[in-house]
Amino acid sequence: MNETTRADGRTPAEIRPVTIERGWSRQAEGSALISFGETRVLCTASFTPGVPPWLRGKGTGWVTAEYSMLPRSTNERTQRESVKGRIGGRTHEISRLIGRSLRAVVDTRALGENTIVIDCDVLQADGGTRTASITGAYVALADAIAWGKAQGHIPAKATALKDSVAAVSVGIVDGVPLSDLAYVEDVRAETDMNVVVAGLGAFVEVQGTAEGAPFARTELDALLDLALASAAELRELQRTALDGPGAEA
Amino acid sequence: MNETTRADGRTPAEIRPVTIERGWSRQAEGSALISFGETRVLCTASFTPGVPPWLRGKGTGWVTAEYSMLPRSTNERTQRESVKGRIGGRTHEISRLIGRSLRAVVDTRALGENTIVIDCDVLQADGGTRTASITGAYVALADAIAWGKAQGHIPAKATALKDSVAAVSVGIVDGVPLSDLAYVEDVRAETDMNVVVAGLGAFVEVQGTAEGAPFARTELDALLDLALASAAELRELQRTALDGPGAEA
Amino acid sequence: MNETTRADGRTPAEIRPVTIERGWSRQAEGSALISFGETRVLCTASFTPGVPPWLRGKGTGWVTAEYSMLPRSTNERTQRESVKGRIGGRTHEISRLIGRSLRAVVDTRALGENTIVIDCDVLQADGGTRTASITGAYVALADAIAWGKAQGHIPAKATALKDSVAAVSVGIVDGVPLSDLAYVEDVRAETDMNVVVAGLGAFVEVQGTAEGAPFARTELDALLDLALASAAELRELQRTALDGPGAEA
Amino acid sequence: MNETTRADGRTPAEIRPVTIERGWSRQAEGSALISFGETRVLCTASFTPGVPPWLRGKGTGWVTAEYSMLPRSTNERTQRESVKGRIGGRTHEISRLIGRSLRAVVDTRALGENTIVIDCDVLQADGGTRTASITGAYVALADAIAWGKAQGHIPAKATALKDSVAAVSVGIVDGVPLSDLAYVEDVRAETDMNVVVAGLGAFVEVQGTAEGAPFARTELDALLDLALASAAELRELQRTALDGPGAEA
Amino acid sequence: MNETTRADGRTPAEIRPVTIERGWSRQAEGSALISFGETRVLCTASFTPGVPPWLRGKGTGWVTAEYSMLPRSTNERTQRESVKGRIGGRTHEISRLIGRSLRAVVDTRALGENTIVIDCDVLQADGGTRTASITGAYVALADAIAWGKAQGHIPAKATALKDSVAAVSVGIVDGVPLSDLAYVEDVRAETDMNVVVAGLGAFVEVQGTAEGAPFARTELDALLDLALASAAELRELQRTALDGPGAEA
Amino acid sequence: MNETTRADGRTPAEIRPVTIERGWSRQAEGSALISFGETRVLCTASFTPGVPPWLRGKGTGWVTAEYSMLPRSTNERTQRESVKGRIGGRTHEISRLIGRSLRAVVDTRALGENTIVIDCDVLQADGGTRTASITGAYVALADAIAWGKAQGHIPAKATALKDSVAAVSVGIVDGVPLSDLAYVEDVRAETDMNVVVAGLGAFVEVQGTAEGAPFARTELDALLDLALASAAELRELQRTALDGPGAEA
Repeated sequence: MNETTRADGRTPAEIRPVTIERGWSRQAEGSALISFGETRVLCTASFTPGVPPWLRGKGTGWVTAEYSMLPRSTNERTQRESVKGRIGGRTHEISRLIGRSLRAVVDTRALGENTIVIDCDVLQADGGTRTASITGAYVALADAIAWGKAQGHIPAKATALKDSVAAVSVGIVDGVPLSDLAYVEDVRAETDMNVVVAGLGAFVEVQGTAEGAPFARTELDALLDLALASAAELRELQRTALDGPGAEA
Repeated sequence: MNETTRADGRTPAEIRPVTIERGWSRQAEGSALISFGETRVLCTASFTPGVPPWLRGKGTGWVTAEYSMLPRSTNERTQRESVKGRIGGRTHEISRLIGRSLRAVVDTRALGENTIVIDCDVLQADGGTRTASITGAYVALADAIAWGKAQGHIPAKATALKDSVAAVSVGIVDGVPLSDLAYVEDVRAETDMNVVVAGLGAFVEVQGTAEGAPFARTELDALLDLALASAAELRELQRTALDGPGAEA
Repeated sequence: MNETTRADGRTPAEIRPVTIERGWSRQAEGSALISFGETRVLCTASFTPGVPPWLRGKGTGWVTAEYSMLPRSTNERTQRESVKGRIGGRTHEISRLIGRSLRAVVDTRALGENTIVIDCDVLQADGGTRTASITGAYVALADAIAWGKAQGHIPAKATALKDSVAAVSVGIVDGVPLSDLAYVEDVRAETDMNVVVAGLGAFVEVQGTAEGAPFARTELDALLDLALASAAELRELQRTALDGPGAEA
Repeated sequence: MNETTRADGRTPAEIRPVTIERGWSRQAEGSALISFGETRVLCTASFTPGVPPWLRGKGTGWVTAEYSMLPRSTNERTQRESVKGRIGGRTHEISRLIGRSLRAVVDTRALGENTIVIDCDVLQADGGTRTASITGAYVALADAIAWGKAQGHIPAKATALKDSVAAVSVGIVDGVPLSDLAYVEDVRAETDMNVVVAGLGAFVEVQGTAEGAPFARTELDALLDLALASAAELRELQRTALDGPGAEA
Repeated sequence: MNETTRADGRTPAEIRPVTIERGWSRQAEGSALISFGETRVLCTASFTPGVPPWLRGKGTGWVTAEYSMLPRSTNERTQRESVKGRIGGRTHEISRLIGRSLRAVVDTRALGENTIVIDCDVLQADGGTRTASITGAYVALADAIAWGKAQGHIPAKATALKDSVAAVSVGIVDGVPLSDLAYVEDVRAETDMNVVVAGLGAFVEVQGTAEGAPFARTELDALLDLALASAAELRELQRTALDGPGAEA
Repeated sequence: MNETTRADGRTPAEIRPVTIERGWSRQAEGSALISFGETRVLCTASFTPGVPPWLRGKGTGWVTAEYSMLPRSTNERTQRESVKGRIGGRTHEISRLIGRSLRAVVDTRALGENTIVIDCDVLQADGGTRTASITGAYVALADAIAWGKAQGHIPAKATALKDSVAAVSVGIVDGVPLSDLAYVEDVRAETDMNVVVAGLGAFVEVQGTAEGAPFARTELDALLDLALASAAELRELQRTALDGPGAEA
């Protein structure tokens, strides 16, 4: 596959067309409907003054996240977790990853005793939903923080947001390292890696999994190279989306 | 309020601008993103050959529905039912209403041993989410049935869909009967009624509730008049949306 | 069926024999064992000074209701909801209906910061359990309020109970509108309507459902006529039951 | 307290007035509403041909039991287990005890591949609800087995019911062994024992618990004497109740 | 079987080799890994200053217990209760028994407003896990109380532990009363009795169950004789284990 | 800290003393009690012929894992997930990681239609419980596969186990990369990475998380170096443990 293009015509290092509809929701303090090709995730950030009881009086804020998929976001309908009465392991895992990734760029002391809850609801899934969630959630988060400043809940000069954060899924398919796997690529990947990158190239999270055979260190290195390059592109798209009224900094 | 207009400038009998984005989902066999003003609901219809065990061999199909609200579809964030571990009474009630309303226009014998699951997920709520769900779900259902015919799961000549169905919420605010209540009207309504109408004016469901004082029969009559008129308008909008390739009849 | 009588010999407008054993429970502040023919529901009203945290300091009371069926109240045993670990949609729906119906005749400000929980447990079911519940619960509620006054929790002159409330199920069977459907009639009904009526004829709740074909406005009107007449009879039976020591007003 | 009488005037060895309304339910194959003083339990026995999957083809039947208390059967209202979403330890414990006690007198081979589910629902509680449940459930069980024979599900000559079974709670209050504790006695008992007795005096279950100080063997012996005498009385009451049309043997 | 020995060569009155590894856990304030032959239970006692809200300000402490089996402690793997989402009746029953048994020898007033939670986790099961749990838990409890004194949470002179407590399972197999049933004996027992004994022979709990035919009073007496003798042996083993640095009294 | 040793005297690259008690359980087909210093995990492997319904007839086996912590394995007692009624995100995450790691070295086709369930129960926790679980589980798995061959469930010549697998946690504390973090190190780590390694150095899983500031690529590289070296040591310890009767290969 080395010299041929991918099913959708992309080169190995090319990400899908990414669009970010900032402010999609009239209700949330920050929101973005992000698309990576056919993958679409609605990210909202809900700002509430105050923190949970166990954090009160400590002078720090709280950022947490919840991820979920609509039942028919997938090719076959999946049962709702509310109907099952329990949240599955995958959902838990991804919610925790999104929360950690965003907290890595938030200065919770500068945020003050305020809570931001991020919701990432996958409306349509075509691979890379967790990395799209992180990338879109950053935009919603930035707007919610800006809202908190505008409302006086956060001091105007506080730098609650220390850096940007974006994420991409990379993997090896038929021996070739590819960036931003679509679903058809993801299911065929021998190795699958989700990489969360802050600012200009520091790692927040690296999660690599051998789906088939274990992978070699050289493969790991190639995937990290791809991820860093794509994350830099996503950072630009986030900046562009935030370049309008209402964004912080 | 008798002679003044409503907060958004509508006359008492006027419904909000309604848009129906048919085929919004690439995954579902039928889908529609319906908006009643700021209320937006994503309706998908998932078609599966076969029926649940308790219906097998009886020659009839099954149509059911699930309703849910995204946590930040509302003005304040509400906790996910998957996180609570149980589905609330309101959600149950609405899911059952949607299911009954759609089954009222389906000939399950003509549908054959096939199952259609309707999902109505509220992306943004501004009153009337259950009636918007029914109105949008009808479009998704019609397309899923058309898909089932195109795939040969339903005989081409079977009339699985007997009629159209649409729904509207009506209520009395400050003594004036109004159609299609927005959220700010809904919370002030003395009487609130959801009316589901098939075809050209037969009732599928009438649910009237006194929110404040009990209501008189003359008030009930006035509300039914409004509902029938608005349902006829919605029926036209559904027809227009379905007037393209892929729709049944 | 127009000129013939019903299976149990009743005329279309005739309700079943109704008995109300007021004060059945030694434990509850108010109680009634109500029978509509073979349908028997034990209604208790538990009075507790104080209100839930979210109502404290607002000067208003709280009335809520829970409905449940004993597992063998029905013709075939049904599994307990406690064993399933979740409450079903039908139970939720009916509990909410009973609560709304009673709150419609309570002045929660006059009730003061007191809570009344109504429990309606169906001991034997033969159709109309939700409407029997409302009708019996009113009697239990009246006694619990009287108890609250006798104990000094409610001022003696407060009119916490604004009106009476009763409910009846009506429906169309073989084209004939019938009042107070027994189970064998209920399963055959084309249209089924539960009507909750306050005092001398104001509607608290109207819930009509097309079980088979959608129904016409003339049918709706005929059913409402029947319901109002039957509700007036039930109101008399409630008054008679409450005409003894211990009742309010 | 040795020579004085008890709060309700009984002698130490005297049980409360016991009434058994056999056939209370029109729905169940066997039923009894049993009262021990103010304690009232509705016991139903549901007969179903066939057994659970794990017993199929083994030629033996299955008897199981479920116990529950109505929320306001007690002096203060207790939350429903269906609302809590889980069954408490006490309920589990008592349900298991009732089931074991009944199985001890059933020949499951003679019962054949049939299932009997016993439901014991406490309508009003004043101590001894678990022992009243067992005593009443025996009557319901006997009738359900008779029904199974009449319907031909059990061979007419099979002795599915090997013996009778009854239960009583005994305890030591102020140093005096008492039979059939009422609630006010139960809460003051130093030692509390539930004894289940088959036929003329064989033990099915002996459950003695030191509520305060551990108890001596002589105390245990005195309690067992009381229990055997009371169980013999209960056996007579069961026989009288079953001495009418419809009872087995 | 009267004159022959048991499968593992024991005489009827002989208990299995019992070992108590006191202080097995580095984390808990008191702990013991107890073995009765192949049955192994890890008992920990967690001491926390303070009591649950409903006990605050009453000057008494709280002791409670939880029992659980590892999924492969049994011959066939059993599903985790955390995975099922609910705790079974048997687990509830045993947890409650352990808690009651320990509270019988604790003076909760002398304990002061402190909480001790006992955890008994069965690592390997070969019969008698609940009685081994009680016997081992006593050692863990004694050390936790000693810890509380050493830390100053309990006054040095308070006698929070009034007595020792031990438990044994006894039963009748092939007509012969046996002490300390191993699993292979337990499944064959006609009668099974768990006996909890305080100090030198007072009963805390007696739970006898007819597994096959009901049992006679003489059999009950023989089992109690066996249980008292074995409990005295266990008391000695507990004393020996506690005869080192760190034990109370 | 650069030149000083660690709290327990280890050098940065040194792992804690590791012991593997193979065959600890008499019940399980394979088992190991593994210790990394004070961290102790009981790993059992349960072999069952047959596979879940969704895999039947496909000729492949199934390996899955469940992880859990005893409530007092930790410094402060944590509530049981069975009592909470739901499994937490962390537990889900780790169970899935263990399962994936083991499946990476199993040839499920060679395993045939057999199921192996791995249980890793943490008896005592002092950091690195998930990596200790994987390392110990490999030994239990190897023995369960050997058992399956000895019993004839797996053909004697099948190579169901393709390679060994071991895991270690590494992290950066005070700027120094350390191997096998103890709990006190783990809570202070700026970056924490769990690395699962197959055979002689291929990656199965790499999970790196920035706990404080994002980490640079050079740090990532240093941690991977450490992990590979430690994994090689663990592989030798696994081999030694399996070098006795009963092990495969």
